[in-house]
Amino acid sequence: MDDSAPAPAPAVDAAAGSLREPGRYRKGIAKREAILDAALPVFGQVGFHGASLREIARQCGVSHQSLMHYFPTKDELLMAVLRRRDERLRRHFDDEGGMRVDELVELAEYNVDVPVVISLFITASAEAVSSEHPAHEYYRDYYDRIVRSTTAYLSVAADRGWLRPGYSAAAAARVVLAVQDGLQLQWLYERDAVNVAELMRLVIGSVLTVPTSELDEAVREEARRRP
Amino acid sequence: MDDSAPAPAPAVDAAAGSLREPGRYRKGIAKREAILDAALPVFGQVGFHGASLREIARQCGVSHQSLMHYFPTKDELLMAVLRRRDERLRRHFDDEGGMRVDELVELAEYNVDVPVVISLFITASAEAVSSEHPAHEYYRDYYDRIVRSTTAYLSVAADRGWLRPGYSAAAAARVVLAVQDGLQLQWLYERDAVNVAELMRLVIGSVLTVPTSELDEAVREEARRRP
Repeated sequence: MDDSAPAPAPAVDAAAGSLREPGRYRKGIAKREAILDAALPVFGQVGFHGASLREIARQCGVSHQSLMHYFPTKDELLMAVLRRRDERLRRHFDDEGGMRVDELVELAEYNVDVPVVISLFITASAEAVSSEHPAHEYYRDYYDRIVRSTTAYLSVAADRGWLRPGYSAAAAARVVLAVQDGLQLQWLYERDAVNVAELMRLVIGSVLTVPTSELDEAVREEARRRP
Repeated sequence: MDDSAPAPAPAVDAAAGSLREPGRYRKGIAKREAILDAALPVFGQVGFHGASLREIARQCGVSHQSLMHYFPTKDELLMAVLRRRDERLRRHFDDEGGMRVDELVELAEYNVDVPVVISLFITASAEAVSSEHPAHEYYRDYYDRIVRSTTAYLSVAADRGWLRPGYSAAAAARVVLAVQDGLQLQWLYERDAVNVAELMRLVIGSVLTVPTSELDEAVREEARRRP
């Protein structure tokens, strides 16, 4: 093996790499992270189709060849960027009792510090509507799981009569998720005028007749009761 | 002038063209519309940066040169496509009393027949967050005007105490607009599961304490009172 070749891509065989060559492995991890950091704003600014691997390589000071070592295709790079963005959220998709709506509000508060992530996420989710887009399946799965998880959480409210008249658990989940996406888009255009988290709380208060803390308690209680 | 050259682009000098060469002018109009029809799905599928003028020309059966005659740059073509999409909505931006929320629901119902327009609009609005995007000013202006117009309409409700506690007219306007954008995005992924207009009506019912017909009447009444 040529010594000047880049370290092996850690995602492929992380455990083996770390045992054999810990120094090289750590450098590989760091480079991979640097590439993802550089890719994010490029995708966010010009969208998936407009982004070029050459430009991303240039922005993070690695050669085009080295970038291709970690991410052989633009598709793989996009997916790695999106997955990293969603880690925080996806951890809660399988929570017992489903996705708490306060978690969505907290995510909106956190997103304010990373506008480029919001921009990337919205652009990619809109572009990926086409079944030919590399992230199409990813987003189908994402919406499917987040709607189901939030619906599971709100179904406890529905069972107890804590949803405003007209709302099913699924309708309430879709509304809360929609308002988050839509407000974040508005916020990107007029950051001083739109407080995403505050408006989300207002909508949640229009959908639920009890405070979220009370619903959280009910969800925990139901989880304890399950065999 | 070479007889085989395409007709002059009607947008440039429509009146003069129609007086001098009515047949050519009509053909020019038709060709221009055909190009916009073909451009819409291409932009909608691959986004602005991914779309190619050559591909759009091919799709509508005109030469690349002929396309360039009508739309010298991709920027101009995108703007013409977006403007045509918005005509229906923008007609109401300057309505006395502002933009009725029912108009937004009707637009959502109409949009169901043109999913590609929704996809294009959402993709372009997310991509155009970058101030370098050709549609950036267009979207800034779009959000600014639609928020102001919807806020003006809802301010009559605010004055009469017809908004649910916590909502200002501006907050209510932003929420209704956000839910429309966000639900349309969800609908693109799961068309059978999301009824955008129905959920929008539910949200409007969560924001207003009176039926929209009553608010419409109040808005008309206030307009009549003005000197």
